Amino acid sequence: MSKQTIYYTLTDEAPALATSSLLPIFGTFAKEADIELELTDISLASRIISAFSDTLPADKQAADGLKFLGELTASPEANIVKLPNISASLPQLYAAIKELNEQGYGLPEYPENPTTEAEKDAQARYAKILGSAVNPVLRQGNSDRRAPAAVKGFARKNPHSMGKWKKTSTSHADYMRGGDFFSSEQSITMEKDQTVRIEFVGQDGSVEVKKTLPLIAGEVLDSMNMSSKSLRAFFEQTLQDAKDNDIMWSLHVKATMMKVSHPIVFGHAVTVFYKDVFEKYGELFKEIGVNPNNGLGSVYDKIKTLPEAQQEEIKQAIQDVYTSRPELAMVDSDKGITNLHVPSDVIVDASMPAMIRNSGKMWGRDGKAHDAKAVMPESTYARIYQEVINFCKTNGAFDPVTMGTVPNVGLMAQKAEEYGSHDKTFELPANGTMRVVDEQGNVLMQHDVEQGDIWRACQTKDAPIRDWVKLGVTRARQSNTPAVFWLEEERAHDAQLRIKVEKYLQEHDLNGLDIHIMPYNEAIRFSMERIVRGQDTISVTGNVLRDYLTDLFPIMELGTSAKMLSIVPMLNGGGMYETGAGGSAPKHVQQLMEENHLRWDSLGEFLAVAVSFEELGIKHNNEKAKVLANCLDKATGKLLDTNKSPSRKTGEIDNRGSHFYLAMYWAQELAAQSDNAELAAKFAPLAKALTENEATIVAELAEVQGKAANLTGYYHMNLDEVAKIMRPSATFNQALASL
Amino acid sequence: MSKQTIYYTLTDEAPALATSSLLPIFGTFAKEADIELELTDISLASRIISAFSDTLPADKQAADGLKFLGELTASPEANIVKLPNISASLPQLYAAIKELNEQGYGLPEYPENPTTEAEKDAQARYAKILGSAVNPVLRQGNSDRRAPAAVKGFARKNPHSMGKWKKTSTSHADYMRGGDFFSSEQSITMEKDQTVRIEFVGQDGSVEVKKTLPLIAGEVLDSMNMSSKSLRAFFEQTLQDAKDNDIMWSLHVKATMMKVSHPIVFGHAVTVFYKDVFEKYGELFKEIGVNPNNGLGSVYDKIKTLPEAQQEEIKQAIQDVYTSRPELAMVDSDKGITNLHVPSDVIVDASMPAMIRNSGKMWGRDGKAHDAKAVMPESTYARIYQEVINFCKTNGAFDPVTMGTVPNVGLMAQKAEEYGSHDKTFELPANGTMRVVDEQGNVLMQHDVEQGDIWRACQTKDAPIRDWVKLGVTRARQSNTPAVFWLEEERAHDAQLRIKVEKYLQEHDLNGLDIHIMPYNEAIRFSMERIVRGQDTISVTGNVLRDYLTDLFPIMELGTSAKMLSIVPMLNGGGMYETGAGGSAPKHVQQLMEENHLRWDSLGEFLAVAVSFEELGIKHNNEKAKVLANCLDKATGKLLDTNKSPSRKTGEIDNRGSHFYLAMYWAQELAAQSDNAELAAKFAPLAKALTENEATIVAELAEVQGKAANLTGYYHMNLDEVAKIMRPSATFNQALASL
Repeated sequence: MSKQTIYYTLTDEAPALATSSLLPIFGTFAKEADIELELTDISLASRIISAFSDTLPADKQAADGLKFLGELTASPEANIVKLPNISASLPQLYAAIKELNEQGYGLPEYPENPTTEAEKDAQARYAKILGSAVNPVLRQGNSDRRAPAAVKGFARKNPHSMGKWKKTSTSHADYMRGGDFFSSEQSITMEKDQTVRIEFVGQDGSVEVKKTLPLIAGEVLDSMNMSSKSLRAFFEQTLQDAKDNDIMWSLHVKATMMKVSHPIVFGHAVTVFYKDVFEKYGELFKEIGVNPNNGLGSVYDKIKTLPEAQQEEIKQAIQDVYTSRPELAMVDSDKGITNLHVPSDVIVDASMPAMIRNSGKMWGRDGKAHDAKAVMPESTYARIYQEVINFCKTNGAFDPVTMGTVPNVGLMAQKAEEYGSHDKTFELPANGTMRVVDEQGNVLMQHDVEQGDIWRACQTKDAPIRDWVKLGVTRARQSNTPAVFWLEEERAHDAQLRIKVEKYLQEHDLNGLDIHIMPYNEAIRFSMERIVRGQDTISVTGNVLRDYLTDLFPIMELGTSAKMLSIVPMLNGGGMYETGAGGSAPKHVQQLMEENHLRWDSLGEFLAVAVSFEELGIKHNNEKAKVLANCLDKATGKLLDTNKSPSRKTGEIDNRGSHFYLAMYWAQELAAQSDNAELAAKFAPLAKALTENEATIVAELAEVQGKAANLTGYYHMNLDEVAKIMRPSATFNQALASL
Repeated sequence: MSKQTIYYTLTDEAPALATSSLLPIFGTFAKEADIELELTDISLASRIISAFSDTLPADKQAADGLKFLGELTASPEANIVKLPNISASLPQLYAAIKELNEQGYGLPEYPENPTTEAEKDAQARYAKILGSAVNPVLRQGNSDRRAPAAVKGFARKNPHSMGKWKKTSTSHADYMRGGDFFSSEQSITMEKDQTVRIEFVGQDGSVEVKKTLPLIAGEVLDSMNMSSKSLRAFFEQTLQDAKDNDIMWSLHVKATMMKVSHPIVFGHAVTVFYKDVFEKYGELFKEIGVNPNNGLGSVYDKIKTLPEAQQEEIKQAIQDVYTSRPELAMVDSDKGITNLHVPSDVIVDASMPAMIRNSGKMWGRDGKAHDAKAVMPESTYARIYQEVINFCKTNGAFDPVTMGTVPNVGLMAQKAEEYGSHDKTFELPANGTMRVVDEQGNVLMQHDVEQGDIWRACQTKDAPIRDWVKLGVTRARQSNTPAVFWLEEERAHDAQLRIKVEKYLQEHDLNGLDIHIMPYNEAIRFSMERIVRGQDTISVTGNVLRDYLTDLFPIMELGTSAKMLSIVPMLNGGGMYETGAGGSAPKHVQQLMEENHLRWDSLGEFLAVAVSFEELGIKHNNEKAKVLANCLDKATGKLLDTNKSPSRKTGEIDNRGSHFYLAMYWAQELAAQSDNAELAAKFAPLAKALTENEATIVAELAEVQGKAANLTGYYHMNLDEVAKIMRPSATFNQALASL
C-alpha cells in the first residue's frame, strides 16, 4: 500500500495557531495508517511573499502553496483539509505588507492609483491576493455542508444561549426597492463556445473593451448594475428614517468576498453618513489619500500627517455628525469603533445571524444591545433576513433544543456565481452604456449607466450546475430529507438556472423524494416553518446563499457555523474538507496575545479530518484509516459530552487543552476497539500514558495562561516560536513523541 | 309576462333609514318593467315582536318576515335584496326590548338565568334572535363577493387614504399557542345518515346528553375545546407583555357572529383585565346581576342600583386598575369607552382591517393613534392578521391605486361552518369529558374538559361543499383569475375538506385554470405578493374566512366593504343580493339624530338591485328589466365619477342627495338609451324634470340639515315619521310621483 497524503492547510490567525498544536497530534496518529499530513502554507502572508518571490532574495522566497493545491484539485487523489483563512480587505492587506516589511521583505506598497509600470505590476499582483482569493481556486466542486449528528445532538442536549425576541421589536432589514443589482439583472445562456466582449460605450460613442470572456456552450452569463445615485439616495433615506424613528442604523455588507463591488458600496455608506465631513474636507482627503471604501478608519489613519490642530478640527467635525445622524451600531463600543470603521468588521453572513441570535439587536454606543435597522442595500438576499426577523417577531426565537436542521448543497464549482469579487466588476468613470457583445457584434445584454455606478458580470458553467443538481438529489436520497432548490422567479439568472434544474432533475430517479423549487422568501419561510416543528430541509442554493445560509442556520442551531461538516466533492473525484469559519478569529488572537488563552474551537478540524481519513480508507481500502476515522468521531463525541471544548475564559480549558483531550479519548478509543488489533496494541501505551498523566498535562497547559504571549507577528509568525507557545506541556509532547 | 317580485329587506339603523328614501325610487322605476319591490321587515325589532306575536294584542302583532324569506329561498323564483342588519349582542337585545316596552309592547325581560317555565320560554325565543340569526336562514347558497369593475376603477382613480406603515412599527397580532380551538380541533366525515349524541360525562361517570344531531352521509362534523385556564393565562400574559413593552392592548373578537363562544371569551378578557375589581366585588356583582360577558358596561349599568358612595368606590377601583394594566385601546376616547366596554363594539373582521389601514394603530386614551397588541385568542384565523402586519411592515401600506383585487368564493350554504354561533356550543359547568357518540355507542370524538371551558361542534354538509368547489372553479373560469382554496393542513376540519375538494375538483374542466390549495398563512401571503404587483387572486374559503376576508381586502382596496357586490347563488336556483356592511351604521344614526345628516352610502344597494334586475331580465326574458339594470349600472358609475356619494360632513350631500342624483342619472340614461324606445319615452319627462330642478331639489335636501331629527325610536321607528325625515324634497317627491 503506497503512502497516502492529506494536505492540511496553514492559514491565518486563530486557526493557524491551533494548527501548531493540533497537527502534531493528527500526524502522530495518521502515520500508523501510513498516512502523511502535509502542511501547505496558504496564509495571506505566504501568498504575498510568493507573489513577489521573483523579486526577493533566496532566503525570503516562498513556494506558492495555493497554486500547488489548486493544481492538486484536478487529481482524483486530492484530499485537502482546508482551514478558514483571511479574505483580505484593503486595510488587512496594508497591515500585512507593513508587517512583512518590518520583517525585512522590502515589498512595494499597495498603490491605490498606480501610474508607473512598477506600480501597475504591484497592484496586479496584490489584486490576486485580495478578498476571496483562496476559495475560488480550491473549490473545484460544489458544496455539501451539514451539522454532523453528534454536533446536532450535543447542541440539543446543551443548547447555546438564544436571545428572546419581543413581538414589539422594531428591528428590521432595509434594502433597495429599485436601482440595485436585483432589479437590473439580465442573464443569458450561451448556445455555443464563443468569446464575448464587455464594453463601455461613452456618450460620445467611443467604445472601450473592458474585458473579453471566453465562454463555453451552456454557460450562464449575467450582468447587472447598481446605480450609485439610487444607492446614495437609499442610504440617505434609511438614515432619515432611522433618525425619525429613533432606531440604530447598522450596515451589513460583504466587502470581503465581494471584494470589488462591496467596498464601493461600503464607501458610499461612509460618505453619505459623514456627508458633512466629506463635503467640507473632500478635497483635502483626496490629497492625503483617504479612501472611504476602507472605512472611517482611513480618515483617522491618513489625517495623522496633518497638523495636530487640523486633526482635532476634523475629529470634531466627525463627532458633530453624530448629533445629526441616527445612532450607529458599534463593533467595539469601548474603543468607539463603529460599523463604518473598517469594511471587514461587519460581514453580513456572520453579522446578521449574530443579530438575530441577539434578539434582533446590535451593540450601541452605551455598550448595550438595541433594536436596529439592518441596512443591506442589495435586495436579492436582504429579503431573507427580513423574513427571518418577521418570523422571530411572530414566533419567538428559534429553540436549539427542538429545532430541525437545514443542511446546504451549494453551487460553487469552477467559480460559479462569484458575484462582484473579481475581474468582471467595474466602477464606471462616466455616463454611458455597458454592454456584452458576441463575436458577431450582436449586443447580448446592455445597461444604461451613470458615473459611479457599479456594473458587474458573472459566469456559471453548465457542468457545475449539473453536478449540483445531482448532489442535491443525492443528499435528499441519502438523508431522506426534503430538498428545496432556492430559485427566485423574478431573477433573470435564476430563470436561466431553473430551466437547467428542471432538465437535470429528469436525469435522476426522483421516486419517493420530496424536491421543491421555490423563490427565496418562500424557501426560507418553508424551511423555518419546518425547522420549528423539528423537521429538516435541505437548502439547494447558489453560491452566495450557500455562504449566507451555512452561517445563518448553523448559528441558530449550533451557536456557530464552525461546527459544520463542510465537504467539497470535487468534480474530478477528489475531496476537500473545509473547517469552521473565521468570523471571530481576530478577537481570539488578541486574547492569546494578551492572556495566552486561545478560545478557538478545533471541532471543525476534528470532524473534517475524520471524514478525510474515512475517504482515504474507502478509496485505498485502508482499513486502519477507517478505524482512525471511526475512533476520531467517537473521541469528538466524548469530548463534546464531557465538555472539553475550549472555554472563552482565561484560566479555563482552551484550544490546547481540548486538543489534549481529543488525543486522549482518541487513543483510548483506538486501544479499546477490536476492529484492528495492531492499532489497538499500538495505541494502548499512549492511552495509558495520557490517561495517567491527565492531571499533570492539564496543569502544565493551565500554567502558562494569564500572561502575555509574544507571537512575533500577526500575519507572518515565526512557527518555531508559535510552537513553543502552543505546545507548552512537556509531558504531553513526550507522550506523543514516544509513540 | 307575469309580474316579477324583488323582495327588499327592511333592516336596522342606517340601512333602514336609507331604504325609506331609496325604495320609492327603485319601486317607481321598477314598475315600468312590471317588477314589484316588496318590502319585508326583518329588523331586530320586528323579529322580537313576531317571536312574541302569539302573546300580543292584534294591533301589536307582526308577521315573521324572516321565516317568510327563509321559505322563499327554496324557490327558484327567490330574488332577495338583503341589506345589512343587526347581529344582536345581549346589550343590543336589552336595549331593543326596553324600547319596545316603552312603546307599550309589554315584552318579557331577557332572563339570564331563567327558572320559571315562562322565563325559559322567553329565553328560548330570544335565543333565536341573538347574534347572526338572519344570515344562516337566508344564505341558502354559497357566497360570491367581488369588487365591481366600476367601483374598483373608481377607487384606483380616487384612492382613499391609507395610513403609512413604519418599518419600526411595534404593532402585532397575539394569539394562543395551545389550549385553543385550533389546537384541539377534531373532525370526521359521516359515512351514512345517522343521529349522533353530544354528551357530557361527569367525573362521577354520569352522562348528560347535551344535544342530538341528525347528520347525513358525507357531512363533516367537527368538535373543539377552548381551555378557559389557558385562555385566562393567555390574557394575563399578553397584558404583562404589553405592560412591559409599553404597548397598547386591544382585544378583537367576534362576539356577534360567534354569539355563544365569543361573548364568553370577551367576558374572560374583562375579568382578567379588571381582575382586582372582580376579585374584590365579585360576590356583589353576582348579586346585582353584572354579566362580564356584556362588558365593563354591564358593571356601570348594574351598579346604578347601589348607594352612590359604593358606586363611586367601585368606579374608583376601576380607575385604579388602569395604573397597573397596559393602556387599553379605545372605541370612543372622548367618552372613555374602551375596547372592553361592550362586546359588539370591536368586531375583529372590521376592526383589524381598520387597524391595518390606520398604520397598524388603534386609538388611545389621548385620542391619538398608537401601535397596539391586537389580541385575538383563537389562533386559527388570528395568524393571517399577523401575516398582513408583517407584510405591511416589510413592504409598506397597500396602495389602492395599483393593488390588485381579492374576490371571495365562500362556503356558507346550509349553515356550513357556523362556528360558535349556535346550539352546539357549551360553556362547561364542571370537569369531565365532552364526546360525540354514534347510534351504536361508538365514541367518534372526545375532549377532556374543565369547568369553564368552551366546547363546540360544527356541521358542514356535503352538497354545499360540492357547490362551493363548483362556484370557485366557475369564478376562476369566468374571470380568468387564479383561485386559491384556503385549507390549513394542520386543521382537522380542513383535512376532511381537502379530501372533498380534491375529489370535486375532478368533476370540472380545469384545463387552463390556475387552482391552488394552500394553508392560510401561505394563501394570504401569496395573495398579498400578487396584490402588490397588481394581480388578482380569488380566495375560495370557508365561512369564517369568507366573513373576515370580505372585509379585509375590500377595506384595503376600496376603503370599505360596503361597496362589494355580494351574490348568493342559491342551491335551488334563486338568488340573494346582499349589500354593504353594517359596521359603522350606529354612528350614522347618531349623526342623523343630532344633525339630520345621513352619511350612509347606498352604493351597495345600487349594485345589488342592478344585479337583481339583470337576473330577472335573464330568467324571465324581461328586456325592460335588462335595460333598467344596464342603465342603473351606468348611473352608478356616473354618480361615482361626479362624486355624488354622501359626504361625512353635515351640510354637504348626504344619503338622500345621492339618491336624488342616482334617480336623475338613471332617468337620463334611460331616456338616452335606444335599446327600448318605450322606456326611453317614458323616462324622458322625468329626466327632464329632475335635470331642470336639480338646484331646487339639492337646496331642499340641504335645508333640513343641521338640526336634530326625531326618529321616534332607534330599533323600532315609526316608518311614516322616518319617511318625512328621509324624503324632505317636495319637488323630488312630486317628480317621482308624476311618472
